[in-house]
Amino acid sequence: MKTIPRASKAQIKYFGSLAQKKFRQEERKYILEGTRLVEEALQSSYPLETILADQSFLDKADHRDFLQQIENSKIPLLQLSSGELAKISDTVTSQGIIAIANQPEMSGKMFWKKLPERSIIVALDNISDPGNLGTILRTCDWFGVNGVFLSTDTVELYNPKVVRSTMGAIFHFPIFTDVELPAFIAEAKGQGHSVIVTTLEGGKNAYEFTFPQKSIIIFGNEAHGVKDELLHLADVRVSIPGFGKAESLNVSSACASMLAIIRKKQ
Amino acid sequence: MKTIPRASKAQIKYFGSLAQKKFRQEERKYILEGTRLVEEALQSSYPLETILADQSFLDKADHRDFLQQIENSKIPLLQLSSGELAKISDTVTSQGIIAIANQPEMSGKMFWKKLPERSIIVALDNISDPGNLGTILRTCDWFGVNGVFLSTDTVELYNPKVVRSTMGAIFHFPIFTDVELPAFIAEAKGQGHSVIVTTLEGGKNAYEFTFPQKSIIIFGNEAHGVKDELLHLADVRVSIPGFGKAESLNVSSACASMLAIIRKKQ
Repeated sequence: MKTIPRASKAQIKYFGSLAQKKFRQEERKYILEGTRLVEEALQSSYPLETILADQSFLDKADHRDFLQQIENSKIPLLQLSSGELAKISDTVTSQGIIAIANQPEMSGKMFWKKLPERSIIVALDNISDPGNLGTILRTCDWFGVNGVFLSTDTVELYNPKVVRSTMGAIFHFPIFTDVELPAFIAEAKGQGHSVIVTTLEGGKNAYEFTFPQKSIIIFGNEAHGVKDELLHLADVRVSIPGFGKAESLNVSSACASMLAIIRKKQ
Repeated sequence: MKTIPRASKAQIKYFGSLAQKKFRQEERKYILEGTRLVEEALQSSYPLETILADQSFLDKADHRDFLQQIENSKIPLLQLSSGELAKISDTVTSQGIIAIANQPEMSGKMFWKKLPERSIIVALDNISDPGNLGTILRTCDWFGVNGVFLSTDTVELYNPKVVRSTMGAIFHFPIFTDVELPAFIAEAKGQGHSVIVTTLEGGKNAYEFTFPQKSIIIFGNEAHGVKDELLHLADVRVSIPGFGKAESLNVSSACASMLAIIRKKQ
């Protein structure tokens, strides 16, 4: 194994600044934490800039294969002290490994071009809770959604809590950020997609609705649902029927339920 | 409107102690926070002991109907200062209203007796995240699950974060706590129920499986799934097929997906 160079003070300061949204946006980078996420990113050939590990991580016999993977990937590996790593880390108990990732540039043109005949696209309107966003992305990944579009007022994708709760889904399929949904809907319709808004009630019964081969499903804010402006642009409203006394479903549960129903039917 | 008596220092201290699990368990009481939860509890005739509100809550013209509801319910209403309320409250920005609820006593015998011909029961094995538990209960409520059984090692139902994230589901249907799941499974089988364990892979395809009229669905821990001991006791294992690259689904999303599929099929 090669000697692993130390991160400089300036580098540590720079990486630490990525804990702030402002710097993440300026630098178009973000932080991945923990063995699992970094491993998933490597396996997905995700654009990592640097990997940082502390001594105890580097010394563990268990990590030899993983370190070999890093070496094979040609992504620079730097070492730092546990205290230095804690300054960059968002978690209380760090696993001793962090990666600095580039926020990937997405080409909308390419996306539409490469889309298969049958597709499901999810658009999220003003999702505000980081855990909800991460969980929704993980669910979209599970059900093989072809792409996700996040409205300008949705919580930042690169927020560490969002990244953690995606459990790697962030590496697996195209996620577009800061999307002006009205313009996106117009474009999607032009490409022959049907725009379906999920509403708590009053929509067509999801179990009975025939989802088109090219479906875009919009889910709305936790408290307020989908904005009126988008409701008016949609081709149809669909609801998951309730069977109990609950007034509403959590948005991530609604997304899971809807995708489970679509996958059976589409 | 009657004059509203002030909570005594001793009462405030007592209610404040319910922030701790130990005291909640000893006293068999817990805390509900916020207008919506307290309103839902009242509407569900849930066993509340006392309602506490601060001056600004009591003074709001908007709250007149709600205060009338409280008066009609005969549940004692006490006032306290915002500072005193903050000592009892778990949230950072309180809405100025809290209720002290009794943890309801559940009769297992009664539960089995009152169960309809077709039923879905959910059992949770070692769910550790409060938000997940609350979201699962809310989803179970939405899909009209007849009862939920929580294993002894599942996070406490009366944890304020769990209570909040149920969004009132906690008032709507029977939830049994501290359940020894192996004994429960034996009992349920004796009552003619089929025990279905959800697994990430290797089980029967949920879309193709015919769920029995009396189904008990077990969901397991976020990281480790359902314990081997319970896997062996189950009649069948069922999995939600994955279509993308995700290795797993969040347990609350798995629950939503599974219930959405069952509701279509049962």
